[in-house]
Amino acid sequence: MDQKQRIQNIEKSTEDKELKKEALRPIPDISREPVCAWENYPVLSGINCPADLKNLTVAQLKQLSDEIRQFILDTVSRTGGHLASNLGVVEMTLALHYVFDFAEDKLLWDVGHQCYAHKIITGRKEAFLNLRKADGVSGFPNPLESPYDLFRVGHAGTSIGTAIGMALGQSRQSKQDKIVALVGDASIVNGASFEALNNLGLVKRQLLIVLNDNSMAIDATQGAVAKYLSRIRLSQTYEDIRRTTNDILEHTPVIGHTIEEAIARIKKSIRMALPASQLFESLNIPYFGPVDGHDIASLIQIFSTLKKIEHPAILHLFTKKGMGFLPAGHEPSKYHSTGPFEITEDGQQKTEDGAKRSPAQRDREKKAEDHPQSFTDIFGSELASIAEKDKRIVAITGAMCDGTGLMEFRERFPERFYDVGIAESAAVEIAAGLAKSGMRPVVCIYSTFLQRSFDQIFQEVSLQNLPVVFCVDRAGVVGADGPTHHGLMDIGYMRMMPNFALIAPADAGEMKAALEFAFSQDSPICIRYPKEFIIDSQINAGCEPFVSGKSVVARESINSDAIVVGYGSIVNEAIKAAGKLAEDGIEIDVINARFAAPVDEKIIRILESGKPVITVEDHGSACGFGSAILEEAYKHSGGIKPRNISILGATKRFFRHDSRAKQLMDAGINADKIAETVRQMLKNR
Amino acid sequence: MDQKQRIQNIEKSTEDKELKKEALRPIPDISREPVCAWENYPVLSGINCPADLKNLTVAQLKQLSDEIRQFILDTVSRTGGHLASNLGVVEMTLALHYVFDFAEDKLLWDVGHQCYAHKIITGRKEAFLNLRKADGVSGFPNPLESPYDLFRVGHAGTSIGTAIGMALGQSRQSKQDKIVALVGDASIVNGASFEALNNLGLVKRQLLIVLNDNSMAIDATQGAVAKYLSRIRLSQTYEDIRRTTNDILEHTPVIGHTIEEAIARIKKSIRMALPASQLFESLNIPYFGPVDGHDIASLIQIFSTLKKIEHPAILHLFTKKGMGFLPAGHEPSKYHSTGPFEITEDGQQKTEDGAKRSPAQRDREKKAEDHPQSFTDIFGSELASIAEKDKRIVAITGAMCDGTGLMEFRERFPERFYDVGIAESAAVEIAAGLAKSGMRPVVCIYSTFLQRSFDQIFQEVSLQNLPVVFCVDRAGVVGADGPTHHGLMDIGYMRMMPNFALIAPADAGEMKAALEFAFSQDSPICIRYPKEFIIDSQINAGCEPFVSGKSVVARESINSDAIVVGYGSIVNEAIKAAGKLAEDGIEIDVINARFAAPVDEKIIRILESGKPVITVEDHGSACGFGSAILEEAYKHSGGIKPRNISILGATKRFFRHDSRAKQLMDAGINADKIAETVRQMLKNR
Repeated sequence: MDQKQRIQNIEKSTEDKELKKEALRPIPDISREPVCAWENYPVLSGINCPADLKNLTVAQLKQLSDEIRQFILDTVSRTGGHLASNLGVVEMTLALHYVFDFAEDKLLWDVGHQCYAHKIITGRKEAFLNLRKADGVSGFPNPLESPYDLFRVGHAGTSIGTAIGMALGQSRQSKQDKIVALVGDASIVNGASFEALNNLGLVKRQLLIVLNDNSMAIDATQGAVAKYLSRIRLSQTYEDIRRTTNDILEHTPVIGHTIEEAIARIKKSIRMALPASQLFESLNIPYFGPVDGHDIASLIQIFSTLKKIEHPAILHLFTKKGMGFLPAGHEPSKYHSTGPFEITEDGQQKTEDGAKRSPAQRDREKKAEDHPQSFTDIFGSELASIAEKDKRIVAITGAMCDGTGLMEFRERFPERFYDVGIAESAAVEIAAGLAKSGMRPVVCIYSTFLQRSFDQIFQEVSLQNLPVVFCVDRAGVVGADGPTHHGLMDIGYMRMMPNFALIAPADAGEMKAALEFAFSQDSPICIRYPKEFIIDSQINAGCEPFVSGKSVVARESINSDAIVVGYGSIVNEAIKAAGKLAEDGIEIDVINARFAAPVDEKIIRILESGKPVITVEDHGSACGFGSAILEEAYKHSGGIKPRNISILGATKRFFRHDSRAKQLMDAGINADKIAETVRQMLKNR
Repeated sequence: MDQKQRIQNIEKSTEDKELKKEALRPIPDISREPVCAWENYPVLSGINCPADLKNLTVAQLKQLSDEIRQFILDTVSRTGGHLASNLGVVEMTLALHYVFDFAEDKLLWDVGHQCYAHKIITGRKEAFLNLRKADGVSGFPNPLESPYDLFRVGHAGTSIGTAIGMALGQSRQSKQDKIVALVGDASIVNGASFEALNNLGLVKRQLLIVLNDNSMAIDATQGAVAKYLSRIRLSQTYEDIRRTTNDILEHTPVIGHTIEEAIARIKKSIRMALPASQLFESLNIPYFGPVDGHDIASLIQIFSTLKKIEHPAILHLFTKKGMGFLPAGHEPSKYHSTGPFEITEDGQQKTEDGAKRSPAQRDREKKAEDHPQSFTDIFGSELASIAEKDKRIVAITGAMCDGTGLMEFRERFPERFYDVGIAESAAVEIAAGLAKSGMRPVVCIYSTFLQRSFDQIFQEVSLQNLPVVFCVDRAGVVGADGPTHHGLMDIGYMRMMPNFALIAPADAGEMKAALEFAFSQDSPICIRYPKEFIIDSQINAGCEPFVSGKSVVARESINSDAIVVGYGSIVNEAIKAAGKLAEDGIEIDVINARFAAPVDEKIIRILESGKPVITVEDHGSACGFGSAILEEAYKHSGGIKPRNISILGATKRFFRHDSRAKQLMDAGINADKIAETVRQMLKNR
C-alpha cells in the first residue's frame, strides 16, 4: 500500500480529527530505520501484501515461516514486545492469508498481541522494524495502520462477539465475505467469549472460529476449560492429530450431506479416547480438531475446506509458544511432552544463569541496573511483608501475577494466592466472597482491565461495603502498549461508588503507607499507581501514615505564588516544575493529595485563599481528581468563592503507543506543562 | 427476630452511617399493615424462623408450600413484584432451609428476585405484606433486613463467584459452614457465571450449586446453553427424573468411595438418552440431576446427601415457573409438554381477553388509563417508525425486550432483532460488529445493567468510533426495585469515552428528535431516559431537531433572577419549580441541556453572565452533567470568571426501594429542591 492509498484509507475510516492526525503521521523514512539485512530474508523480502503469498509453493511458505520467525526474533530482541505467542502463530497466519482474501474477508483478532506475522505480510514489514516505537507499528491490530486490521483491540474475549456482529451485518446486507475469529486458549475462558459462544446460534452463515491452543503447561489455577483442553492434548499423539487432519479433509463437507453428518463421520473414524468435541457440542458448535497448527500444507487444505461451511464452526489448533526458537521446537512428535521453556530477548540463548524467569521479571532485573524499583516492585515486596503479619490477607489476580508484582507473594503464600485467569469479573466476585467471610482480599488488576469488573465493583463490593483492597497497576498512560492499555478512567469510575476510598501513593515510602492504611480500613479502597520506575523520590512525606481524607505537603515555600495539588506519582512532576519555576523566582507549594475520595477539605480551603491552584493527575481530565475538587468546592452553593483553578489531566482522546514520557507530554500532564500553566495563571491575574 | 436483635445485627453489619440510617428505620407497626387473614394460613402463621420448619412433617411442608404460594400471590397481586419465578422455588427454598441451617451456613442468591419464600420464612412475613413499599421488605435479598441475606444483589451471574470466595475464606479459616449458591438457567449463561464455573476448581471443600432450571419455553434467541438444557428436559420423562432422584440417593456418597465413583455408578444405572452431565463434565464439575424441584420429600433427601460431599457439585432442578397457579401446574407428568402460561396480577384468572401479555405490557396498559405514555413506550414506537425507513437499523437487547419497549420492533422486524440473553458484554460486542459492517445497531439495556458492558463500550465502540446507538432505559432512580437497579452512574462512565455524544430527551417529542439525531450521526451516541410516565409535557422545544452540542430554552422570562439547566426529563421538575417560584415573584429561565457531551458552550457563557445557575440531573452528582459543566468552565484557566453555581444531583449513597417521587426527593433533585436552591442562592448574593 503506497502512501497515497494509505491516506485515502485513513480519510475514509474516521471522522475523528485526533485519530486522523495520529494516523496521518508519515510512515517513517526507511532510510532512517534500523538497517535490515533483507538479503537474509529472500522470501520475506518479496512479500509486500497477502496476494504475494499465493504465488508461493508449500516449501517456500515453510521457508517464509522460518524467515518471519527470525525477523520477529530479531526485531523483538531490539524493541521488546510479545515474542512467544507470535512465534507460535506464523503458519496459522500464513495459511489463513493464503486461503482467505482479507482485503474483503474479515479477520478478527482476540487480544491481538499475536498479530506480528499478520502485520509483516500486510505491507508493514519496514514499519515493523520499529515495533511499538513512536515511528513504528503498534503491537496490536490497528485499522489506522492498515485496512487488514478491523478492530483496535488489546483486551481479551471480544473477537467472537464482534465476529457474530459482523456476520449478522453481512447477512442483513446479503454479503458473502468470509469471517474468521481467532481466539486463544487463555481468552476463550473469558466471560465475554463465553457469552458470545452461547449466542453463536444467531449466525446462520459461515463464521469460522480458530482456537489457537498453545498451553504448554497447565497450571492448577488456570481453570476448568484449561484442564479440559489439557486432557485433550494429553490424549492425543502426533499421529492422532495427523489422522484427525486427514479425516476432516476426507469427510468435510460432502455435497448432499449436512455438517452434522460430516462431523458424525469424522468422529466415527477417529475414535478418540476423549471426546474432544464434548464442550463445544454441548454448546451446539460444530467442532473440528485438534489439528497441528504448524503443518502449513494441512492448514491450507483445512481452511479451504472449512471456508465452505455455511454455518459457524470451531477449529481447534495445537500450536507451540515459541515455535522454532528452542530445541524443544524441533521435537514436535508429542505435543504434551514439551514443558515450558524460556525465551530471552537477546537472541537465541538461554539466560546466563539458566534460571527460568519471565520476560517481565527479566525486564525488571535489567532496568534495576539503572533504576531502583518500580511501583509494581515496591507493591509486591510491601504486600508480602504486610501479609506475613496479617494472615487475613489473600491476593487475587486475573492472569497478571507477574505484571502486578505478586510473584513474591505467591512464592511465600501459595495457599493465599488465587489466579483466576482472564476473568476480571470473577476475580472481584471471589474477592467479595472472601471479604464477606472475614478475609482481606487484595485484587491486583491493571486499570484498563479492571474496567471489566466495573459492575462487580459496584454491586459486590461498594453496595455491600466490603473491605476489598484494589491495587490498580498501570494507572495512567502506559507507554508502548498504547490506547487499549492506558488507565485513564479508573478515578472516574471508582469515585462514583459509595463507601470507597481512593488513594494514590507518590513514591515508594508512600506505597507502604498506603497499603498499611488500606488494611486498617473496614471498607473498600482503591490504590492506583503507574507503570513507572521510581527514579529519585524527593517527597518527604513518605513516612507519614495515611489519614483518611488528608493530604500532605510535598514542598512548601514561605510565600508561594501558586499551589499545585497532585494526585499520585505525578506529584514528582510538580516538584520538578517547582524547581524550574524557582529558577525564575516563582515559588510554588506542592500538595500531595493522597486521596481522591474523600478529598481533603484543606484543599478546598486553599481554593478560598485566592492563590492560583493547579490540580494535576495521570488520568483523563473528565471525571478525575480535579473534577472531584471542583465538585467539592461547589457542593455548598455560594459558600465558597471560587478562584482561578486549572485542572491538568489528559484530554479526552486516545494516546498512541510511544514512550510514557512522550505520552505525558502529549496529554499535558508533565513538569513543563505544570510550569507553563503556573506562569500563564500568574500572568492572567 | 425481635427489634432489639435486629438493631444489634445492623449495628454490627456496617460502619456506613447512611446505610445504618436506612436500615434502622423502624419496622412498620403491623396493626397499620394490610390486614392479613392469618387463619387462612394455619401452617405459615406458625413459622417465624427457619428452625420452625424442622418440626413439620412432609405433609405439613407440602401444605406450607401451598400456603406460601397463596401468600405470595395475594401479596404480589396488591404490591406488584416478581411472581412466576417465586412460585416456582417454594419447595426448593423450604427444603434448603429444612436441611441447612442458614444462620450459620451460607445461602447465596443470584439476581435474587426469587427470594420471596425465603423472606417469608426468615422472620419477615409481616413486612412482606408491604413488599417493595417503603415500609415493607425489598424485592431482593438485603442483609440490612435479615442476617439470612448475605449479599444485596439484583444483577445476574454473581452467586457462584461470591460463593467461591466465601468457600475459600472458610477454608483459610478452617470453618465448616456449608455453602449453597442458587443460580437460574437465565443467569448461568452470563459471562460472570461462566468465569466463576471455570474457577470452581479453586475450591477444595463443600460448595453446592443449585441450578434452578425453569425454562418452560425455549426461544431461538436464548442461546446454546438454553438449548442444551432444553434438550435435557425434552429427553426426560417424569419417570426418568424420579429414577435419577432415587439413583442419586442410592449411590451418593458411599463410605470409601469417591464422588467420581458415585457419579459413575449413578450414570451407569440411569442410562440417559442424552448425557445431561456433558457440559458440566467438560468443566470438571460433578453434576447431579436432573431432579424434580417440586418433590419436597426427595429434595430434602438429596440436599441432605449432597451436603456431605466435600467437593463442589452442581444439582440440576427442574422447576415450573408459576407452579401451583394454573391448571397446567397440576399436570406435571411430563415436564417438557407444558407450554408457557400466563400469570395475572389480579388473582388466579386469565386476562379478560385471554391474550398472552407479559406483566410489563399489562403494567403499561393499566397505567395508560391515567397517563399517556412512558419514555419506554415512546422510544419503542418511534424506533419502529424510524426503522421502517432506515433499513440499517437493528436492535439488540440482553433479555430486556419487553422492559426496553422493543416488542413492536421485534414484531415488525423479527429478522432485525437480537436478544442475547443476560449477556450485556456480548450485546455490545455484537453491536460493534454490526456497526462495523455498515448497520446501525441500537443497544437497549437498562442503565444499571449496562455497567456490565463498560469495557466493551470503551474498546469495541469508543476506540473504534463506531456508530452504535445506546438507548439507556431506567436511567436515574427507578423506584421499587431499589439500590441494585438505580441508574445513577451512566453519565459519568460514558462521558469519559472519546467520540461519544451523550443526549437526553426531556419529553415525548424530544425522544423522537433525539433518535432522529442519533441515526444521523456517524459516531457512537448514548440516549438516556428514566422509568417514567410522561404526564404532561410543558416543554415546547420538543419539535426542534437536535443539533450537536446545542441546548434549547425550555422556559424564558424577560428578566430572570436565575437560570436552571436541566439534563433530561428532570427539566420538567425545573419547570414545576419555575411555576412555584413565579408565585413569589421570582423568575427563572429553564434551559433544556439536551447534551452532556459535548456540553453547550452557551451554558458556559451563561455562567459568565453572573446570574445564579443551577444544574439538575437524575444522576449522581459525582461525575455527572453538572460536573461536566464545571470542567468545561475551567478548561481555560483564568479565562472564565466563575459565578455562583449549584450542582443538583444524587448524593453518593444508596437509595432504598420506594416510589420514584420519594427517591427524587431523597436525592434532592425534584422541583421543591430546585426552588429551595434558587431561593437560597438569591438570598446569599
